[in-house]
Amino acid sequence: MLIWQILQKIMLSKNQIKNVSSLSLKKNRDEQRLFVAEGEKLVGDLLPFLVCRSLFVTKEWAMEHSKKTIPEYVVVDGLDEMKKISFLTTPTSVLAVFEQPNLVLNVPTLNNDLILVLDEVQNPGNLGTILRIADWFGITHVICSHTTADVFNPKTVQATMGALARVKVHYVNLLDFFDSYQALKLPIYGTFLDGKNMYKTPLSGVGAIVFGNEGKGISAEIEKFISSRLFIPNYPADLKTSESLNVAVATAIVCAEFRRN
Amino acid sequence: MLIWQILQKIMLSKNQIKNVSSLSLKKNRDEQRLFVAEGEKLVGDLLPFLVCRSLFVTKEWAMEHSKKTIPEYVVVDGLDEMKKISFLTTPTSVLAVFEQPNLVLNVPTLNNDLILVLDEVQNPGNLGTILRIADWFGITHVICSHTTADVFNPKTVQATMGALARVKVHYVNLLDFFDSYQALKLPIYGTFLDGKNMYKTPLSGVGAIVFGNEGKGISAEIEKFISSRLFIPNYPADLKTSESLNVAVATAIVCAEFRRN
Repeated sequence: MLIWQILQKIMLSKNQIKNVSSLSLKKNRDEQRLFVAEGEKLVGDLLPFLVCRSLFVTKEWAMEHSKKTIPEYVVVDGLDEMKKISFLTTPTSVLAVFEQPNLVLNVPTLNNDLILVLDEVQNPGNLGTILRIADWFGITHVICSHTTADVFNPKTVQATMGALARVKVHYVNLLDFFDSYQALKLPIYGTFLDGKNMYKTPLSGVGAIVFGNEGKGISAEIEKFISSRLFIPNYPADLKTSESLNVAVATAIVCAEFRRN
Repeated sequence: MLIWQILQKIMLSKNQIKNVSSLSLKKNRDEQRLFVAEGEKLVGDLLPFLVCRSLFVTKEWAMEHSKKTIPEYVVVDGLDEMKKISFLTTPTSVLAVFEQPNLVLNVPTLNNDLILVLDEVQNPGNLGTILRIADWFGITHVICSHTTADVFNPKTVQATMGALARVKVHYVNLLDFFDSYQALKLPIYGTFLDGKNMYKTPLSGVGAIVFGNEGKGISAEIEKFISSRLFIPNYPADLKTSESLNVAVATAIVCAEFRRN
């Protein structure tokens, strides 16, 4: 049996607070290849799939749960102490520091998959919701432009609700990606206000669906790769609208329709 | 021609700041029957439909736009000054105080409509997104329990993207509401993880669709009014999941499917 390296503490040290807090910045997350997840359910969902470097729990939580074999397992006095490292408005009884998974993207292996491509989705909450949708609809690979929000942003992590355990998120140069992806001869879909009624368009079980920026939509340089322009019909259809749907909402409706087919 | 009652100012008065800031609290919004909307597009979308009590604009905006016939039209020095009254992290060049519309709910007149019913949707952003979805799909009436987030919460208002101009939001005692609504003999739908595949269930163009709380779902006392329990199939279908979809995402997928039929 392993000897648990358990460090029991009541007060967090200045270093512990500094280390966790530093992960609010993308620069530090990238350098250390770490990220923070909070909440009993979320952390519980991720623990079996990711390497946990540090686990901070309240005394109350520790008394009700078995001890974990984590390099740094810290029991803190309570939620007031937890507040010093939490990124949430209301801290929870569990905070974990995980290693970012090492993913390798091999484009030719995507030839049997339905994938999502995000072209500068900026809002961390939208990104998290999109990953949760991908998870629900069995979409494993989400390809993001470097200008898309960071999946390890605390707000995104919290919005994923554990989808991070299953969905693989790759950051790439989208122009290079599509150059390789085009060789697979699969359809590349995108949603546009002037696209074709989604319900009257053949939707394939394999291929890529592109979603664009919250304000600008899909960029001109990516638009030229799109082979099928889709529109989510509003209702009644003859009511012309200048409005659009939130990008996560559009993702949900489009993914549901692809999977229904 | 009307004489414009225009008060030109550079600095906001303490009273102006106090009055606008007080509207961050529901209690004050309810008492004064006012709410705040920010941003050029959102305010522009609402102005033709709602009574505007005060309009605060930056000098730059005022120079580029015609003056408005608003009781209190205030030109402020710039975004730094705007920051004193803005509820946003990044203030915009336009902030408006609107009167809350006076709505009367007449249940028997709903007999030709598809309506949404929200049973304790707590997150203001989710509520705003749901109203935007209702607007897209031509759903005019959204009935909310008193425990649902306040539609005039600044976060909700911002998330509606102008849907407030068209969608009517009613706060009611849901038990009383369903007592009357049942007399219309229309279907009442709800989504449940143990419901029936939505794509294999007849969906009517009239009736009510109920969505529940983010954590607890539809409450037991409301569940008994549901005549058709729906499930949004995940993919692949044989993969059992303990996860659920975000309530706004579920609303989007369900409304799209109702309108497709």
